[in-house]
Amino acid sequence: MQNDKVQIFDTTLRDGEQVPGCKLDKKEKLAIAERLDVLGVDVIEAGFPVSSPGDFTSVQEISKLVKNATVCGLTRAVENDIKVASEALTYAVRPRIHTGIGTSESHMKYKFNATPEQIMERAVKATAYAKSFVEDVEFYAEDAGRTDNEFLARVLEKVIQAGATVLNIPDTTGYCLPEEYGAKMRYLRENVKGIENVILSCHCHNDLGLATANSISGVINGARQIECTINGIGERAGNTSLEEVVMILKQHPTLNLHTDINTQLLYDTSCMVSEKMGMVVQPNKAIVGANAFAHSSGIHQDGMIKNRDTYEIMNPQDVGVNETSIVLTARSGRAALAYRSKKVGYELTKVQLDAAYEQFLNVADRQKEVKDDDIHMIMERIQMRAGALA
Amino acid sequence: MQNDKVQIFDTTLRDGEQVPGCKLDKKEKLAIAERLDVLGVDVIEAGFPVSSPGDFTSVQEISKLVKNATVCGLTRAVENDIKVASEALTYAVRPRIHTGIGTSESHMKYKFNATPEQIMERAVKATAYAKSFVEDVEFYAEDAGRTDNEFLARVLEKVIQAGATVLNIPDTTGYCLPEEYGAKMRYLRENVKGIENVILSCHCHNDLGLATANSISGVINGARQIECTINGIGERAGNTSLEEVVMILKQHPTLNLHTDINTQLLYDTSCMVSEKMGMVVQPNKAIVGANAFAHSSGIHQDGMIKNRDTYEIMNPQDVGVNETSIVLTARSGRAALAYRSKKVGYELTKVQLDAAYEQFLNVADRQKEVKDDDIHMIMERIQMRAGALA
Repeated sequence: MQNDKVQIFDTTLRDGEQVPGCKLDKKEKLAIAERLDVLGVDVIEAGFPVSSPGDFTSVQEISKLVKNATVCGLTRAVENDIKVASEALTYAVRPRIHTGIGTSESHMKYKFNATPEQIMERAVKATAYAKSFVEDVEFYAEDAGRTDNEFLARVLEKVIQAGATVLNIPDTTGYCLPEEYGAKMRYLRENVKGIENVILSCHCHNDLGLATANSISGVINGARQIECTINGIGERAGNTSLEEVVMILKQHPTLNLHTDINTQLLYDTSCMVSEKMGMVVQPNKAIVGANAFAHSSGIHQDGMIKNRDTYEIMNPQDVGVNETSIVLTARSGRAALAYRSKKVGYELTKVQLDAAYEQFLNVADRQKEVKDDDIHMIMERIQMRAGALA
Repeated sequence: MQNDKVQIFDTTLRDGEQVPGCKLDKKEKLAIAERLDVLGVDVIEAGFPVSSPGDFTSVQEISKLVKNATVCGLTRAVENDIKVASEALTYAVRPRIHTGIGTSESHMKYKFNATPEQIMERAVKATAYAKSFVEDVEFYAEDAGRTDNEFLARVLEKVIQAGATVLNIPDTTGYCLPEEYGAKMRYLRENVKGIENVILSCHCHNDLGLATANSISGVINGARQIECTINGIGERAGNTSLEEVVMILKQHPTLNLHTDINTQLLYDTSCMVSEKMGMVVQPNKAIVGANAFAHSSGIHQDGMIKNRDTYEIMNPQDVGVNETSIVLTARSGRAALAYRSKKVGYELTKVQLDAAYEQFLNVADRQKEVKDDDIHMIMERIQMRAGALA
């Protein structure tokens, strides 16, 4: 069963959309679902059908629309949730029901006020009930990150017997360290009977900034699905960023893991989701931020101009960004100024460059960025001087 | 030498400020430096003095202003850079010169067109020259992330002999995986003579979204300084986020590592830097994003209301955020509606809550967020009905 393909489970429309201010209308959801299908995600979690009539209809319409990906609906371990989800998924080519329950001490005690045995019984019952509607049933052990490994293994064994095909191990609160999350996956692979017949899934949150690293640690240790969102949106500090995990696997061939994502669509998809959800992507966001491929310091620009490889570990075109930008600021050196000057039409001698650079620093100390217009102005000034010197 | 204190080296004003569009004037730099000193950072990298006259003056003024932190100036392995930096640092209570050179094959070959022996010679010469001005000399091996470990160890041994007190191991291109970066630190601790007398430093970039995880892996494996910026700003996808590494160490006491940061000032400092640099912090940014402590889904809200611990791994007040918000959306459940209704003055019976919830879902399906005004309107409607039913 274990191969090198990592399934990408996109939950932009479910865990992503439950963010304050991100609510989408049905038309917007359909447009995003269609794009995700083209992007090449393996699973689209389309919503939580029982939660509202709007969500039910959206899951239903997405099920009709999506051609390739599995369409998944979230439920609690509650009969009615599961029944409603199965109805919403009727038209899906590949339907999946995602059901589960909290397994950590804190969740069992405070949220469910139930004993571990009662929780296990509800887990099994929900999985079996979901299986009566669809073949593909994913079980989530909520707050698995803080769940005792031995108890978690026992629950998972039972839900595999009840028909689960995918086991989701969420670090619901975003607390795990990468080593710890990876060790949990390893423990489960080694201690759960029947685990070789199902897929282990990483579902990480970014409360401490570790969602990406935890997911990667998960797949290194045997998981084969990552649950993530475009731009890492999601409740609180968000979910794992789809674009980050996909590019890490692509740029690290020695891991021997791959996804089926068409990475050249990443940047456009990021812009589309950001715009429709009204959620800004910060300029220093990895992979899809406006500055992700912008070099500004003199030392870096000099290196980039000599050989891209000195400062660039991926080709911007691989994620759909057209050009690396070299932005001129007070930190830029002579090499960058010469490079840009040449681009806008000036071939400078060493003496001219020295004179231009002096002017350039004066301008750069006053403004955040030196643009092409400024370069023309600088050139006018030094050409006059150059003329006077001749 | 090895103890459990991790030094925080803030480079917001150097690596952060070299971002396109982030240039600060001297007054703004001084205000940020003063705030960083109060925040409790151990080192402030104030600028790159030789790079422009404005930078020189800023480093000089920051040196006069800062009371507690070490003030550091960046240089290349170039005599004039080092001399100018030492002049800019004249008034610092604790001055540090940060010098270094690229040690990876790509940097040696394409950037410096030099042999490994020539690079080593320049490294030693620069360190010794810096040591003639100040006691505290940090050496960076640029692109150490892609540098052969054996060669790196040889260079570091030589610069320790030449007087370096801190060794910076930058993952300049943001390519390393956490395990790999940690293994590099472990290798250096085990293979560099004299390493026990100096501090190893992590300097990570976020091109693949792993800067935080790499830095944490670094300190778990023996580094005792993290170079970082407020909000993770910096060239391309930015540097390690100060707030993330600090909170990971605080919330994971079993790591036995701590910093001296006054975490309650994190949120305000983040806002200050974002505002002065004009660099937006995305809502789903860990620790300091607007949504970092906002719960909106019904399942989560229900859990939070029963016991905070079910979904919250840190107290928002610990980072200077006043209250966890529970935002009402179409994903909110009855418990959240009852909770908020009570807060704005309505104690509902079960029957009233059912009626209110039905109205609530209609409103929530139309709007992104249900606010207090909407609740009052809903209550007016159901009180009429409740009256009619009675």
